[in-house]
Amino acid sequence: MVVILKDGVKESSLMEIIEYLDAYNVSVSVTKGTHTTILGLVGDTSSVDQDAIRAFSVVEDVKRIQEPYKAANKKFHPEPTVVDIGGIKIGGGNFQVIAGPCSVESEEQIIEVAQAVKASGATLMRGGAFKPRTSPYAFQGLRAGGIDLLLEAKARTGMPIVTEIMSAAHLPFFDEVDVIQVGARNMQNFELLKMLGKQDKPILLKRGLANTIEEWLMSAEYIMAGGNKNVILCERGIRTFETATRNTLDLSAVTVLKEKTHLPVIVDPSHATGIVQYVEPLSIAAVAAGADGLIIEVHNNPQKALCDGPQSLTPAQFDTTMKKILKMRKFMETEMMN
Amino acid sequence: MVVILKDGVKESSLMEIIEYLDAYNVSVSVTKGTHTTILGLVGDTSSVDQDAIRAFSVVEDVKRIQEPYKAANKKFHPEPTVVDIGGIKIGGGNFQVIAGPCSVESEEQIIEVAQAVKASGATLMRGGAFKPRTSPYAFQGLRAGGIDLLLEAKARTGMPIVTEIMSAAHLPFFDEVDVIQVGARNMQNFELLKMLGKQDKPILLKRGLANTIEEWLMSAEYIMAGGNKNVILCERGIRTFETATRNTLDLSAVTVLKEKTHLPVIVDPSHATGIVQYVEPLSIAAVAAGADGLIIEVHNNPQKALCDGPQSLTPAQFDTTMKKILKMRKFMETEMMN
Amino acid sequence: MVVILKDGVKESSLMEIIEYLDAYNVSVSVTKGTHTTILGLVGDTSSVDQDAIRAFSVVEDVKRIQEPYKAANKKFHPEPTVVDIGGIKIGGGNFQVIAGPCSVESEEQIIEVAQAVKASGATLMRGGAFKPRTSPYAFQGLRAGGIDLLLEAKARTGMPIVTEIMSAAHLPFFDEVDVIQVGARNMQNFELLKMLGKQDKPILLKRGLANTIEEWLMSAEYIMAGGNKNVILCERGIRTFETATRNTLDLSAVTVLKEKTHLPVIVDPSHATGIVQYVEPLSIAAVAAGADGLIIEVHNNPQKALCDGPQSLTPAQFDTTMKKILKMRKFMETEMMN
Amino acid sequence: MVVILKDGVKESSLMEIIEYLDAYNVSVSVTKGTHTTILGLVGDTSSVDQDAIRAFSVVEDVKRIQEPYKAANKKFHPEPTVVDIGGIKIGGGNFQVIAGPCSVESEEQIIEVAQAVKASGATLMRGGAFKPRTSPYAFQGLRAGGIDLLLEAKARTGMPIVTEIMSAAHLPFFDEVDVIQVGARNMQNFELLKMLGKQDKPILLKRGLANTIEEWLMSAEYIMAGGNKNVILCERGIRTFETATRNTLDLSAVTVLKEKTHLPVIVDPSHATGIVQYVEPLSIAAVAAGADGLIIEVHNNPQKALCDGPQSLTPAQFDTTMKKILKMRKFMETEMMN
Repeated sequence: MVVILKDGVKESSLMEIIEYLDAYNVSVSVTKGTHTTILGLVGDTSSVDQDAIRAFSVVEDVKRIQEPYKAANKKFHPEPTVVDIGGIKIGGGNFQVIAGPCSVESEEQIIEVAQAVKASGATLMRGGAFKPRTSPYAFQGLRAGGIDLLLEAKARTGMPIVTEIMSAAHLPFFDEVDVIQVGARNMQNFELLKMLGKQDKPILLKRGLANTIEEWLMSAEYIMAGGNKNVILCERGIRTFETATRNTLDLSAVTVLKEKTHLPVIVDPSHATGIVQYVEPLSIAAVAAGADGLIIEVHNNPQKALCDGPQSLTPAQFDTTMKKILKMRKFMETEMMN
Repeated sequence: MVVILKDGVKESSLMEIIEYLDAYNVSVSVTKGTHTTILGLVGDTSSVDQDAIRAFSVVEDVKRIQEPYKAANKKFHPEPTVVDIGGIKIGGGNFQVIAGPCSVESEEQIIEVAQAVKASGATLMRGGAFKPRTSPYAFQGLRAGGIDLLLEAKARTGMPIVTEIMSAAHLPFFDEVDVIQVGARNMQNFELLKMLGKQDKPILLKRGLANTIEEWLMSAEYIMAGGNKNVILCERGIRTFETATRNTLDLSAVTVLKEKTHLPVIVDPSHATGIVQYVEPLSIAAVAAGADGLIIEVHNNPQKALCDGPQSLTPAQFDTTMKKILKMRKFMETEMMN
Repeated sequence: MVVILKDGVKESSLMEIIEYLDAYNVSVSVTKGTHTTILGLVGDTSSVDQDAIRAFSVVEDVKRIQEPYKAANKKFHPEPTVVDIGGIKIGGGNFQVIAGPCSVESEEQIIEVAQAVKASGATLMRGGAFKPRTSPYAFQGLRAGGIDLLLEAKARTGMPIVTEIMSAAHLPFFDEVDVIQVGARNMQNFELLKMLGKQDKPILLKRGLANTIEEWLMSAEYIMAGGNKNVILCERGIRTFETATRNTLDLSAVTVLKEKTHLPVIVDPSHATGIVQYVEPLSIAAVAAGADGLIIEVHNNPQKALCDGPQSLTPAQFDTTMKKILKMRKFMETEMMN
Repeated sequence: MVVILKDGVKESSLMEIIEYLDAYNVSVSVTKGTHTTILGLVGDTSSVDQDAIRAFSVVEDVKRIQEPYKAANKKFHPEPTVVDIGGIKIGGGNFQVIAGPCSVESEEQIIEVAQAVKASGATLMRGGAFKPRTSPYAFQGLRAGGIDLLLEAKARTGMPIVTEIMSAAHLPFFDEVDVIQVGARNMQNFELLKMLGKQDKPILLKRGLANTIEEWLMSAEYIMAGGNKNVILCERGIRTFETATRNTLDLSAVTVLKEKTHLPVIVDPSHATGIVQYVEPLSIAAVAAGADGLIIEVHNNPQKALCDGPQSLTPAQFDTTMKKILKMRKFMETEMMN
């Protein structure tokens, strides 16, 4: 950590702040210039509160050097995390495609879609039971009943299921769910993250609408600090000024995360773009950027979908797209590795 | 609602979509041009699902005309809502200042600050007990114990208290709290909003980091749809590319909200800027823009604050600022009304 | 400047980078920790190229401490700059309102508006002759002919004129213009800024759509480095995700600039909001935030305006708004100063 | 175009606005509901000024349906544009890589880099002569002298050159340049765009820092409206809240542009990320997303680069990256086409 003091700081103020820092068991060195004085702090600065230092009136600025995340940090855990979902592995060279409708709507729908996406090569099934909707008047999902239908589809197809949680109070309904998804709007619902850290199902943690990669890793850290190391990160587009797409897909986040963390990273091109014709090219680009997987919305009848119809592929479209995804993945693993 | 069809739509596709729309009991009129066909939908379109229409392959775009919020909409409720907090009124010409520390840290601290801000003219006291922090390693608040200390301060000063909730599971601790705050990170925690709609304490609903004014009103709508009409909106800065301030205070939101909704609107210049010297000028500007109140962070020893020290005023600074706020408010109510 | 080296840097690499830095005549001090090594650079670091240092493979990060602007920096020029426009002063306690139409359209129009705004108390007149339009098919302004009409209006009313330049090649047309405006889209048209630095007319420099305050001051620095110290900064809203207003007015920029620079700062509520009913409350708020002036769009017939009709006040609306602006300004200068 | 009128509009106001619209030779149809009246305009609405309509006090909103760009619109020109640069073709299935340093610094440097990138498979050379820099104190490029050195490198290697223009006044220096680049900061320098439309060299038009895809196409339209149809679009990252990368690379823009326009689209991963290790994976992802080319910064000694060292590949790194780019491109053209 580096502390920059204001111009013309008095010796007594300098002493006061150094004394304050000494309490943290870090070593402090002072660099004095004609105008500026810089304090360099080395040692374990993770417990030093930046804000508290910034509140000293003689402090101009405080700059952190070390990343604030530990459990998620690749520096301390260079080996990639492989999340195992009933034998389906993701991360560390293992690539998976999760597919299914935005919302579970009926037994017929979810089973039809599940069978179709499995036939095309998806290995995990998604489907929303508890649905976060901007409007209280929009369809809120089948909730617990939706999970029952997902489990029915799992029984019929053998595919593990991924579904979103909106409140820790619903955890009992998730007993037989395979992967619990935390949506973008709950990425900083810290009480929920804490509860999910205390149980052991894998968590698919979506990036918040306007959250930095560092904040996202800090949310992963909340889960991991509780003991649950099985976190999958999911880039789903960020909010920008652009309106041609629903969100702006940040594929550079995949490359940044591959450098900063050992956790697997997947991409959701459906929510990122919101428009069906952009899903295929961006799925392929995500694989090329090094993603460990994809999560794609598929609906057997997008026009009748109770949510997100415009971004849902039909099973036939998904089949075509999936062929290209798998071809690209194989190419990345073989030709591009040399 | 306006539905724009793609170039060269066939008569049969046109019929199909009109049939679909007819089911909603809205009246549809068709405007045909050489290239474009436009459908105008009038009537109660609130139940029509835009996304479902957009999923028709012949649809180019769907544009909503009516605001999606009802209970919060000034069109349907032109009279301003006045929220009454144990006799302290806010909205409809009533202006209040809420002040106190970011976190409750000790009995001594909260009582000292409460007495100071009351002496300077604040009418409600704020203090964080459950604290949303980006890092799991940062101080998480005194939690239930913090609420006890707030109640102690209330007993000693008579000031109603405002404090943040992070999970519906904590509601029992809020029994004697006067105003429940929903923080920016929980603005779209819809399950929490629903629970808060079912109880009757006033809610101070902060704007999300990167949420539009319309999304914010839809979150208010979640609370109001449950039966709780006592919602106070709080602008606290939005996330932009600018780094000179912690967030970008959007004072135009106050003027937009005054036009769109009857709910009271207050401003939090402390979180918006994150820097103590900008709090006073922006508090004054917020009053001039028509805000119904302010919420300001005050700490008796900012350098020792466990969070947000750099943006906390000392009681002495607050006293000076408060004098100017009250002077400006009086000026707005008198001279500027003519 | 602070240079943070990567974990486990070798002594030889450390020597290499220190040797490189020595060439800049700055003093370098080294702080070594178990993991991190920090170099503190003090002295005149303005010529040190951050990027070049960052390109050393052992460098983790480089953090600048001093502001990169000098001529515009309040630290080195604590006295406020007062720009004198033919006797009309702005800055250092002098407040002015600039008013007029988006575009000059006809002699009748510009003279009618000029007389009206003067009668209401505006002291400078604005009007676009060269118009930056997103579409090549939109009205591009009367160009040189528009300046002639502005000069005619100046002759009739005695008001100095402010008008926008789009290319240094047009400078000869600006001979009798009083203040040359640089629009948001040209804030980083560095060749234009350089040319404007070599002449001596005051420059009204608008903030770019998505430029930081620091970049804005660096653009002022381009002008000042050329010798022209008469720069007026104009906040006109920044681009964000919010769509309720045309841009997001950043009034906190006024308070930041008042701390960082001695240059006068004015606010353009018309372009910031794009909506006529928000112009008055935000004009008043800008005055309360400490702005040195306002620039407001007024048109004698907004429905027939060739651009920006929806954000233009009529002369009657301007008259009402102006009364409030002047009342607020007087209040700020008198009551709020005590 | 669709015009939405305010609740309770009077018949006379309705007549007035219809009369106004009639003047534009478009056909207007009226849809009346209990609350809302909608006007549908069909025909050639490109000359109808949205803002003028919005300025009618009875108008609630105006929504455009047709894209405002014509020459750049794929609807009217479905065949892809192929830009021919001295026999090197880009677009319509032709893929090229442009490489070279941020700035031309010396004869030795530019020739060494040019020969190296050519040997690795680049077909066009880039190098900045006129440099847009945020600071007036930073290296501003060798300017005209830099172009001489580029021409010398062209003479030695036979590679066409791409270099940036900052002012129309510099056009005479660009006589022998092959492709003129318009940088992000000049994307809406409309006077420059107009001048470039009147000459016939191909233009590489970078996306502005915070410009929408539609605004970007409108800037291409400025050039094309003047007669120059040879425009290459270049995505180079947009400004967002994220700080882990210099900008946020928007690869979805490539897929949107492929749908909306016939112009070739290339990607600049160097400026988008600003960090050397992200250039390779994002180059590969851009090819997979369907880009028609790449522009990559390469420097023979990044630590001594006068600008952008941290994002420049060495010739050896470029050689490795280029092999992967070409392998991916071949794969996209062959395997992924089936």
